[in-house]
Order: sequence, then structure tokens, then C-alpha cells
Amino acid sequence: MLHSNLNVNEKGNLEFANVDCTLLAKEYKTPLYVIDEERIRSKCKAYTSAMRKYFGENSETLYASKALSFKDVYKIVKSEGLSIDVVSGGELYTALSAGVSAEKIYFHGNNKTDDEIEYAIDSKIGFFIADCREELDRIDEIAREKGIVQNILMRLTPGIDTHTYEAVRTGQVDSKFGTAIETGQARELCLYALTLKNVSLKGFHCHVGSQVFDGQTFCDSSDIMLNFIKEIENESGFCASILNLGGGYGVRYIDSDEHLNIEKTISEVASHIKEKCALLNMDMPRILMEPGRSIVADAGLTLYTVGSVKTITGYKSYVSIDGGMGDNPRYALYGSQHSALVANKASEKADFLCTIAGKCCESGDLIAEDIMLQKPERGDILAVLVTGAYNYSMSSNYNRIPRPPVVVLKDGKSRIAVKRETYEDIARNDV
Amino acid sequence: MLHSNLNVNEKGNLEFANVDCTLLAKEYKTPLYVIDEERIRSKCKAYTSAMRKYFGENSETLYASKALSFKDVYKIVKSEGLSIDVVSGGELYTALSAGVSAEKIYFHGNNKTDDEIEYAIDSKIGFFIADCREELDRIDEIAREKGIVQNILMRLTPGIDTHTYEAVRTGQVDSKFGTAIETGQARELCLYALTLKNVSLKGFHCHVGSQVFDGQTFCDSSDIMLNFIKEIENESGFCASILNLGGGYGVRYIDSDEHLNIEKTISEVASHIKEKCALLNMDMPRILMEPGRSIVADAGLTLYTVGSVKTITGYKSYVSIDGGMGDNPRYALYGSQHSALVANKASEKADFLCTIAGKCCESGDLIAEDIMLQKPERGDILAVLVTGAYNYSMSSNYNRIPRPPVVVLKDGKSRIAVKRETYEDIARNDV
Repeated sequence: MLHSNLNVNEKGNLEFANVDCTLLAKEYKTPLYVIDEERIRSKCKAYTSAMRKYFGENSETLYASKALSFKDVYKIVKSEGLSIDVVSGGELYTALSAGVSAEKIYFHGNNKTDDEIEYAIDSKIGFFIADCREELDRIDEIAREKGIVQNILMRLTPGIDTHTYEAVRTGQVDSKFGTAIETGQARELCLYALTLKNVSLKGFHCHVGSQVFDGQTFCDSSDIMLNFIKEIENESGFCASILNLGGGYGVRYIDSDEHLNIEKTISEVASHIKEKCALLNMDMPRILMEPGRSIVADAGLTLYTVGSVKTITGYKSYVSIDGGMGDNPRYALYGSQHSALVANKASEKADFLCTIAGKCCESGDLIAEDIMLQKPERGDILAVLVTGAYNYSMSSNYNRIPRPPVVVLKDGKSRIAVKRETYEDIARNDV
Repeated sequence: MLHSNLNVNEKGNLEFANVDCTLLAKEYKTPLYVIDEERIRSKCKAYTSAMRKYFGENSETLYASKALSFKDVYKIVKSEGLSIDVVSGGELYTALSAGVSAEKIYFHGNNKTDDEIEYAIDSKIGFFIADCREELDRIDEIAREKGIVQNILMRLTPGIDTHTYEAVRTGQVDSKFGTAIETGQARELCLYALTLKNVSLKGFHCHVGSQVFDGQTFCDSSDIMLNFIKEIENESGFCASILNLGGGYGVRYIDSDEHLNIEKTISEVASHIKEKCALLNMDMPRILMEPGRSIVADAGLTLYTVGSVKTITGYKSYVSIDGGMGDNPRYALYGSQHSALVANKASEKADFLCTIAGKCCESGDLIAEDIMLQKPERGDILAVLVTGAYNYSMSSNYNRIPRPPVVVLKDGKSRIAVKRETYEDIARNDV
């Protein structure tokens, strides 16, 4: 199977984290997001232990919570000792509600509103990752009004092109995020930040993109960032104590995707950074990394009920399910590929070529095209794999379809982490 | 200006439906969806009067409510005498809550769940538009259990390619929707439907796609549908009394888009259909049409606050706003074009070339690329035009950003139709 938390039991049904998916569908109905808690924990441990081992005890692993954000997941990640990356007031609210300590929260994003800045400062969050001049000014002004000095990192764009799809490519110079090193604007903004009285610049952040499978990309961006830190130190005397290398670690969605070895990658990046620091004759800054997708993606799958199987003579077959782009917009948005199988026929041969269509009233509402499935029929349970990241978090009520609940599995038991939306929920704010 | 409900007042501010947009932003904050009630009403009247004039008093105009669905909009459209097209239990619930009569509701969609079919039958809705064999069977079975005979239309795919973007192209043979005429499957399914005891087939439905500006497309699909009706009548004696030609009427998003003349288009299609019926020696069926986007699109705009203006030396400028793909995913999904202007500088020259970026933590979160704006700065109000359709209805809480409220304008006054989401709303179902 694609991941080790998947297997087929003696009844021929798909099991996820040792729980029969057909029983979950029966108990909670479909569509249903299912999360494997143990898988999240083991990923957290893989990152934190490798970070400590190769970057030292003062390194820090942040969970990039935009990948999957609700109270339960913050509690899990927090208990594994990770800090939290939030990108909005809503994520901050949820993290705080889940009991995350404010000082362990880093506030990202290319455009924080005044309300968000004020809320975050009032909450005493650890760091802002300041994106631009306007934000620096507002953080400084609001911190002054509140009588505090706010710790910040500055987001820089190192100019790395990860050759991944445009929508997830953020490290290149032409980006809505951060400030470019190449153009001299990062230097200028950094020197400006150092003049501000109510922000305390502690270091820099970069993020080169998503679905990165090679350590080399992180080595390349580290080189650029460390050179920049050295130049700024030479020019201004300011010595950055923190370097946040962002996230973007690749996830295996389909059989042909690579496996990412987290420890090996971090080990390689650490060796490279240590050499580079020695070369530059500088102390290694405190290193932060921010995995998000790679912590939760393969800890999730989605269960659907098949509604119809339509073979258009001479064309192709469509398998319609009771969810779609409302709960998983990744194919509609990016053409992303997912693996799928019929959970109640998991031991049968996947010899039926088809396109999986959602139930939204839109032709583009597809989940996968030209995929091989066990021959499905109305009432079968379809499992779409590796949906832990950017499925629930991106879900909408398009067509006023309620969002599915999230069920978390642990030790063979299940609990509801997010309740199923009702029609009343959807119309709650209608006057 | 792009549409007649837009103008610039003596203060140089953008007015929408004669209301100063900067005052709306001040009163309700941003981001904010704004809807012009009078524009919706005038579009409804344009369709219903043209339909009656050219297709007779027994024609029917349905509002395809997936374009914009909340209680207030159903009330407006209902009071203009339109029937309602819903595509889910959630839309049905909202329409019924708004006081729409069940018998005026048509239930569409490629995959209705058993729960939805039961809910709709219990609600005594007028028609299902049955998509496929499995659905026919379930409607028949559930109607039998309830002791009723349910009126239905059948959705057919006439095999028309509208040459519009794939995601909105639905009339071609290779489609997740309906049953193809070309392959003989529509004939077969129709004959099967006629054998069922608890469904009463009244006619057929087709929908050829979106953003259609020429009557010719509707004429072409009518030809195919009328030929099919005649063939079925010859073969089985079944005489379809209803032909539902769907929607898809084009909307002017940018200056270079055409204007659609609703009356002229319907008049042309009616002449064509009458001739065709005469040729086939058949009575004209009752004609239904289902405009959605074209009723609400230019009745809406979205107001945002500018957060930063970032010019990357040698590259380009990004203007970040306090919304984005969460409230308007159309650019991210389809690369759709929108017009925009700075509402508080509407009389100034639009000579600043930029890309409008949302605040979501994702590079693909853009609203428009390479657009000319009045030179913006933090705090300015940006108006993105023609967002009445498929903005609120497709909105998500990506990044846990609350969805904007919807304010409806009428006679120079404003009222809240959908309240702004709070952080508490977003986390309401978190356990």
C-alpha cells in the first residue's frame, strides 16, 4: 500500500490506522475525513528528533497549521513539543483556544490586517514574520501603543525556483511574499527595521515552495540566507540569531512519488549549514523549520459513498461520489493527483478505468481522472488517500453542501474532532 | 463604467447602486460583499418578460441558485415570480427557509444522495432533474415508499461544445452530467424511465455550459433536444411536455467582454424553436430557462482594504488585500478575469500596473494579474467588480479566515443579508 497506515483486512476491507473504513463510514456516514493521530505524532517526532540531533537543542520545529487547522490537531502537535505557525487571526484564535502558549506562536502571512496585528500583540504571541514595510510600520506603531517591544523575523525571498507548480512556488524573486535579497530591497528593509524602536528583529525567514523532495533546495536557500546574514552583520553589526528555513517537505500522494527521508534530509541540510557557517566564520544561528503538509497529509484520508457509475459508450466512465471540490478542491485548483480505492472491495483487482466526479454542479468538480478502481457501484465506499493536508482546511460550502466531520483515530478507537456541518450551520448567518 | 450601476461621485469615490463604496467599507468593514437588489430585480424582469413574450405565458424562468445562495436572494427572486433551481439539500433547505414554495423548486445535480432525495420528496418539491439510472431507481423507490408519484425531467447531454473553458463546459458528450443522446443511452434511459411506476417523466433538460453570448448555441441544443423528443414520441408515444434549456448566459466581467441582450437572444431562440417545431410537426413544449450567473453577477462587487503595495525592483508590483481566494477563488480556479479600481480614488487615472494578491498563505492566491489601478496604498479601499456570482457561493475558510458579510443595497439604503463570520463561528464545530 501507499503508506504503512493502510492495509486490507481479512474481510477485504480497507483499514486505516487499524480501523475498518467501512465501519467508520457506517458509524459516521459519508463524506468523512479520517485522521490517524499516531501518524501525526510519529511525523512530529521525526522532525523534532532530527532537528535536535543535527541542529542542536535550541533548534525549533513549527507546525505550519494552515495545512490542517482545528483545535484537536493543535493539541496533538503541541503535546509533541512543536511550536505553531499561524497565518491569520482565525488560526491564532483556534491555536489559543486549544491551549497553545502564545509565546510559541509565529504569525506569518503576506498581509496581516491591523486587527490581526493588534489581536496577536494583545495575545502576547512570540513572533511576527513581518512581510513588508507597511507591516513593519504597523507592528511598530501598535507595539508602541501597547507599550511593548515585539520580536519579529523578516520574510525574505532568496530567489530559489523549486521547479514545482506555480501556485506553490514562493521562494523566487517574483512573489507576493517577503522581500527580495537579489534586488537589494531586503538589505534596505532590514536596515530600516533596525531603526524601529518597538520591534526587535531577531532574524530571517524564507520558504522556497511545496512538494520539495531534495535537501539541496534547502541547502541552496540556506547559502543565500547565510550570505545575507553575514553581509548585514558586516554592514550594520546586527547579528541575526534565528534562521527560519520554512517548510515544503514533499509528500507521497501516488505510487510514483518519492519517499522523503526526513532525518536524512535534515542531516544533509545541517551538515551543509555548519560548513557554510564555518566558511563564513560565523556562529550557526538558531535554526527553525516549519513542516505542515508533510506532518498531516498521509495521516488523513476521506471516505465517500459512490452514487452512480456512468459509462458513456465510446468515451469514458464517471464514478460520482457524495463529496467533491467542496471538501477537496486540490484537483480543481492544481490538477493534483490522489490515489483512491473502493474500501469495501479493497482486495479486488483495480481494473476499472474511470474518472472520479464530485457532486458539485460544475464540470471541473473532479477528484481524479483516468484512475484504476475496483469496479464500483452505488453504495460502495470510496477512500481517497492522503487528504490530511489542504482538504479540510480549504473546504467550502459550494452548492451549500455541509462540510464533512473530522474523525481522529487512536489505538483502534475513533473520536469526533470536528462535527459535521448541518444545513442550519450553513444558513446560520443568513438574515 | 463597466455597468450602469457603477459611477463616480463628486468626491471622486466609487458609487454602486448610488451608494458611496467608501461609506459602506467604513460602516461594515472589509472584506465586504455588496449586492444591488434593483439590478437583480431588473435582470429577473428581463428574463421573465422575454420568456413570456416569446415563449408564451406557460414558459418558466428558474433562478439557478448555485450562483448565489442565501435566504435574502431567494426572497428577491421569488417575489419576481421566478422558480428555483437547487443542486443540493443545503440549497433546498435555504430556499424553503426563505419561503419559496416547494412546487416551484427543481432539484438538479449529477449525484443526489438518498438523504437528499428523501428530504426533497418529503418537502414536496416540484421536479427532480434526474441525472442517471441509479437516481431514477432511487427516486422511484423512495417515492413508492412515500406513496407518491414524483414528477421528473431527465438531464440529457446534447453533445454541444460551447468552446468555453473546460470547467464550465457541460453539454458535450463526455460529461459527468446527464445521459448522452449521441450514444443512444438517452433513448434507452428514457424508455426505462417510462416503465417506472412512481416517477412521472414530463420532459428533458440540457445545459450547454457557461459564459455563452450567442443565441446560436441554444438554437443548436434545441434542435438536438427537439429531434430527440420527436424520435421518442414516434417510438414510444411519449410526448414530452417540458423542455428545459438550462442557463449559461454570458456576463460582462471586463471591458472587452460582450454585452448580452437578453430579450434579443430569447427572441431569436424562440423563433428558431417555433420553426423547428413546425418542421417536426409538433406542438412546442413548455420552455424553461435557468439563468443564474447572469442574474446576479453584475449585481455584486467586493470591497477590500489594501494592506501593502510591494514593487519588486525589475519585476512587478503586488497589491495585497484583506481577502483573496477564500472569498473569490475564481482566478485561482479558472484564471477568470475581473475588473477592479480603488474606490476612494476612482476619479484618478488608473496608471499603476500591478497584480492583486490575496492574503492567503499561497502563491496562487491572486485576484488579477497585470491590471491597471489608481496608485494604491495601505488603507485604500479596493473594489473588485462583478463578483455577485460564484464568489460568496464558493467561499471557504481557507487559512481560517472568516467569510465576509453580504450587504444588500436598495433605494440608497443598505441591509445585512448574511452576517460576517466570527472566529467563534469558524471553530464552532471543533470539539
